[in-house]
Amino acid sequence: MKKEKPLILITNDDGITAPGLQALSEAMSVLGDIVVVAPDSPQSGMGHAITINNLLRLDAVRVHDDQKWYQCSGTPVDCVKIAIDKILHRKPDLCVSGINHGSNSSINVIYSGTMSAAMEGAIEGIPSIGFSLLDYALDADFAGAIKYARKIAKNVLEHGIPEGTLLNVNIPKLSATEIKGVKICRQAMAKWEEEFDERLDPNKRKYYWLTGKFINYDQGEDTDEWALKNGYISVVPVQFDFTAHHAISFLNKLDYHVE
Amino acid sequence: MKKEKPLILITNDDGITAPGLQALSEAMSVLGDIVVVAPDSPQSGMGHAITINNLLRLDAVRVHDDQKWYQCSGTPVDCVKIAIDKILHRKPDLCVSGINHGSNSSINVIYSGTMSAAMEGAIEGIPSIGFSLLDYALDADFAGAIKYARKIAKNVLEHGIPEGTLLNVNIPKLSATEIKGVKICRQAMAKWEEEFDERLDPNKRKYYWLTGKFINYDQGEDTDEWALKNGYISVVPVQFDFTAHHAISFLNKLDYHVE
Repeated sequence: MKKEKPLILITNDDGITAPGLQALSEAMSVLGDIVVVAPDSPQSGMGHAITINNLLRLDAVRVHDDQKWYQCSGTPVDCVKIAIDKILHRKPDLCVSGINHGSNSSINVIYSGTMSAAMEGAIEGIPSIGFSLLDYALDADFAGAIKYARKIAKNVLEHGIPEGTLLNVNIPKLSATEIKGVKICRQAMAKWEEEFDERLDPNKRKYYWLTGKFINYDQGEDTDEWALKNGYISVVPVQFDFTAHHAISFLNKLDYHVE
Repeated sequence: MKKEKPLILITNDDGITAPGLQALSEAMSVLGDIVVVAPDSPQSGMGHAITINNLLRLDAVRVHDDQKWYQCSGTPVDCVKIAIDKILHRKPDLCVSGINHGSNSSINVIYSGTMSAAMEGAIEGIPSIGFSLLDYALDADFAGAIKYARKIAKNVLEHGIPEGTLLNVNIPKLSATEIKGVKICRQAMAKWEEEFDERLDPNKRKYYWLTGKFINYDQGEDTDEWALKNGYISVVPVQFDFTAHHAISFLNKLDYHVE
């Protein structure tokens, strides 16, 4: 009996035309049959948004035996959900998201459509990985990212990932030979200090643009921020059980009685 | 010197006109000065989305000494960010979100705009709580929810919450006297099994609506699902460090070398 090739679901948050999606499909196509279901427009910063108050469109872009590409009008998480329900005939062996144009390290994991799509895959019980390159440019060099994304995906196909987890992979803006290797990390404690840019529209009404400054509070050398700054690819295992187990005993000591 | 009254930031994801927001402001107004910054339209299921490719509007709805209400065109997370940068003159003592019309227990914490707004508050270093009532009705009975929300918020103002955590509070659809009390819980392992409803538009083009069935895999009696089913309010401490620390040693054993 011929062993079935791995089935790999690919999505992203920069949309179906993003070079990073092309790069990821190139990285994955030697590992198995790929099905791409990506947003029909950019969806950066969508976090784990889903479309519940609007309809969704789903259209085939190009469909061959070993490569099927679809676009969906929804969010990255919608793409994973609709792929599983409407396109895939069996549970995929791997769900990958990206390669994002820009970092999803540390606190960015929370805002990221790329990572939320991978998290949705993990919730569905699919080994899942989100990939991001620290380069916003449309003509970014994905050569190193492709090599390492393939290796990390191969590892996951062969060895799996611990249950209830997914991987957040960030790749520094370096050539393939300059990248020093891979570090397994924890999420650095960092945040964005927002500054809203205030402007006037032609009718003299105020409007605002979100801008911000990234601040890393974390001096640890076991964090994703440290790894990236020092020329390594960061791999953070991420979980979707958000329970802060260590806080339970503190909360149990308080009184919750009402009159 | 007169002690300053606590400053409480309130938001939600059902929008500025939602009865649940009114109920939460009623619960909080006896505890301090309140500033409401809520979306100008419903934002359910927005997760941790932020607006980065569009402008934001921010308008005062009604502004009194001890109650200031604003509406913002963005997501729940945008509301918290813009409140901190543009409206509040000092860091609030508490950030509360809700009261959501519908459950945000177990896996719903991930999709929830209500909880993401509270998480954004926590990232900003503000003690933060998301409240949800298991009743979608516009005329839902918030009497019990108001009592317990006030008590839980009072606890947090007096005793704080462990650093890096926030609270996810869900309230069963019961009268104030029927609610059995409060249980500190962990997030139940559950998921939505999606089913996309397929329809044809007037031009005979297909479109889809996301629907789904909630499946709880978790038989534990220490979960939020168990508490709610048994007449208790569930309080889950939630963290925004998503690192799956237990998976790090497994990942460190694999080879990441590329040619």
